Amino acid sequence: MNILINNTSILTMNGENEVLKNASIAIENDRIKYIGEILEDFKADKAIDGSKKVVMPGIINAHTHMAMSLFRNYADDLPLWEWLSEKIWPIEDKLIGEDVYWGSMLSLIESIKSGVTCFSDMYFFMDDTAKAALELGIRARLAWGMVGENAEDNTRFDLTRRFYNDWQGKGDGRITVMAGPHAPYTCSPEYLKRVSEFAKEMKIGIHIHLSESKKETDENYEKFGKSPIKLAYDQGIFDVPTAAAHCVHLSDEDIDILAKKGVSVIYNPGSNLKLGNGFTRVKELMEKGVNIALGTDGASSNNNVNMFEEINLAAIVNKGVNKEPTCIPAMTALEMATKNGAKALGLDKEIGSLEVGKKADLIIIDLNKPHFYPIHDVVAAMVYSAQAADVETVIINGKIIMENYKIQNIDLEKVYENVEKSIARLLE
Amino acid sequence: MNILINNTSILTMNGENEVLKNASIAIENDRIKYIGEILEDFKADKAIDGSKKVVMPGIINAHTHMAMSLFRNYADDLPLWEWLSEKIWPIEDKLIGEDVYWGSMLSLIESIKSGVTCFSDMYFFMDDTAKAALELGIRARLAWGMVGENAEDNTRFDLTRRFYNDWQGKGDGRITVMAGPHAPYTCSPEYLKRVSEFAKEMKIGIHIHLSESKKETDENYEKFGKSPIKLAYDQGIFDVPTAAAHCVHLSDEDIDILAKKGVSVIYNPGSNLKLGNGFTRVKELMEKGVNIALGTDGASSNNNVNMFEEINLAAIVNKGVNKEPTCIPAMTALEMATKNGAKALGLDKEIGSLEVGKKADLIIIDLNKPHFYPIHDVVAAMVYSAQAADVETVIINGKIIMENYKIQNIDLEKVYENVEKSIARLLE
Repeated sequence: MNILINNTSILTMNGENEVLKNASIAIENDRIKYIGEILEDFKADKAIDGSKKVVMPGIINAHTHMAMSLFRNYADDLPLWEWLSEKIWPIEDKLIGEDVYWGSMLSLIESIKSGVTCFSDMYFFMDDTAKAALELGIRARLAWGMVGENAEDNTRFDLTRRFYNDWQGKGDGRITVMAGPHAPYTCSPEYLKRVSEFAKEMKIGIHIHLSESKKETDENYEKFGKSPIKLAYDQGIFDVPTAAAHCVHLSDEDIDILAKKGVSVIYNPGSNLKLGNGFTRVKELMEKGVNIALGTDGASSNNNVNMFEEINLAAIVNKGVNKEPTCIPAMTALEMATKNGAKALGLDKEIGSLEVGKKADLIIIDLNKPHFYPIHDVVAAMVYSAQAADVETVIINGKIIMENYKIQNIDLEKVYENVEKSIARLLE
Repeated sequence: MNILINNTSILTMNGENEVLKNASIAIENDRIKYIGEILEDFKADKAIDGSKKVVMPGIINAHTHMAMSLFRNYADDLPLWEWLSEKIWPIEDKLIGEDVYWGSMLSLIESIKSGVTCFSDMYFFMDDTAKAALELGIRARLAWGMVGENAEDNTRFDLTRRFYNDWQGKGDGRITVMAGPHAPYTCSPEYLKRVSEFAKEMKIGIHIHLSESKKETDENYEKFGKSPIKLAYDQGIFDVPTAAAHCVHLSDEDIDILAKKGVSVIYNPGSNLKLGNGFTRVKELMEKGVNIALGTDGASSNNNVNMFEEINLAAIVNKGVNKEPTCIPAMTALEMATKNGAKALGLDKEIGSLEVGKKADLIIIDLNKPHFYPIHDVVAAMVYSAQAADVETVIINGKIIMENYKIQNIDLEKVYENVEKSIARLLE
């Protein structure tokens, strides 16, 4: 389908003409055909009036566990290890694929409603998350969580290979696969070594948790005499394109390693704060040239998958931490959620900015609301004034997934019912 | 009018039975008549089905400058003093009453839409803010900003007295007046002394900014050999019920003074972060028993008046700062925005919790949205999952001000037009 959005403000996020006024953008099938001047012979099947609206690249949630919406508001304000070991892990042990499907559906519907067009997820029963993503039309980069002590154990390597064979490129290329070694505190060094070799052989990237909590970081030093980052580095993880989630407890050497190896850090400000983990050294990472993307983490530690909150937090929290109101300007925070996210997932040739020839993953935000007036600076407005509910239209891979706040062809009541049914069984 | 809300979840915030399920609440004229069991002879003029909804006390924005929405997204990511002295103050000098009216209208409409039923404001041309509050039906505690070196200058004392005479108790008692000495860096010690005597004589509370930025705090020590808090204390400010905004840069002695004198601290997490001022010592203040309320500050340093963001920040930021996921549990953050706000404004006998006999200032939040499922804990849901746009209905002083997301009898386009006209003239 050919779509034309007219008379609108466009945040291209392309590093040059980043804000266009009274501009138009044309979509032909799954790609952006024109931005700015639209050739007269372009025939639109659908025209959208973009006045008093902003068109920007779809938001990329670069680290999440969508199915964990099942545990939303179930156990909060608890010490981290009590929360994990007494609340989350016992019910995760009882999960079946169906639970993951409904939990993923719920979070993905919330994601689309809040402007997310692509997400990177690591969890269990990933076929069910893939199925939900396929059905809803969202772009997904999926990793089946790998944990293990024994590097000879083939189970999860076989699983990831099977998952890759089943899903890589499905949904017109929307679904792609990564390797997902959970973390150095759940994988032995030998196991991590084998994951790095496996990922190289499979030609896939790696999605891993690193240095999220002080406890795991301290214990890594005690057990191995080095940081989790250094351990991952020594095991060859960073020889493969890696997206490292959290990275809260970093030494200067860690930052140098991340920079040298081109590792993308996925910053999860909401979850890091809520779980009491603290502050990622965003300013220092950026000064060393590390690519920083944004994620919500799961809705059990957030408690939503609302990327507008994370964008706002990325901008304001680092100003507070560094006592610098100029730290992480609005555009930088928006980049984290768009082009940096695309880079972190190895998708920057296709998505992350609005450029002719790129995939048409974009969202329309309705400015005609009291909290956007007077309209001075649309970049600042997106970062400091917007809320998720301002996203009006979502286009992914050239398809209109949500229009005028409504996602087509979903049965929300059925999703709610099945989510409630799942969690009731899990808590039995 | 008699209103009955049935079959709903009620967050009473009354310190005892704080969450009621499948409960009802009845309003007779401007007050709450029953909660829980509704006597059969109660005749409702209007019944509201509260299923899959939460009823809670209206949110209190205890420190804001509503008219500053005019400067929203106009100058961001700048050093604090450059922002103030080069951007904000020069256009504030050109303000006229009409600007303040339209700026206040805009922010008050946004406030109502995001669940605020009472606000405390300090600014110029306060008759115009009062007029907007009167027309919209919101509860207001208003202070005309007082700045001065010369304590013999009667200008702003006369102004506050006149403002008090004109507005105290207007709108069925919704509008009340405070004295508003701006800050120790804009009022001389002698001036502050006279304000304290004036407030005592007038029997009104005080709304003041204290220790917001490091610069003003350091300069206060240099100039007067003591902290802004100690200075205000020595000048008798705290002998009057005082709401002190910001209080970011606090010594241990400052905290002791605030506790001993029963000063309420108005915590503005969003503004404090965005302007690079840093972190209010919330945990230590609470440990000493200081009452902490919440505010947005003006929309020029936030950049909205969305109290749901502040509630969320209050809960998560302090967990991060203290590395304690148990710090500021959800209920504590909600209290800051309701009962503590009422206490800070000296209105706790009338508002801040849902109790029989109190004023009917309450809001209804619609839980029937993906980001609230599964519904485990409605307190956590309000703090960690909600967004402002989830507020469906707002009742103030027993009157329905917003129903089903619509504020009655407002002409939004006219507000937008006049706001744009004002700011265009101010920037000329």
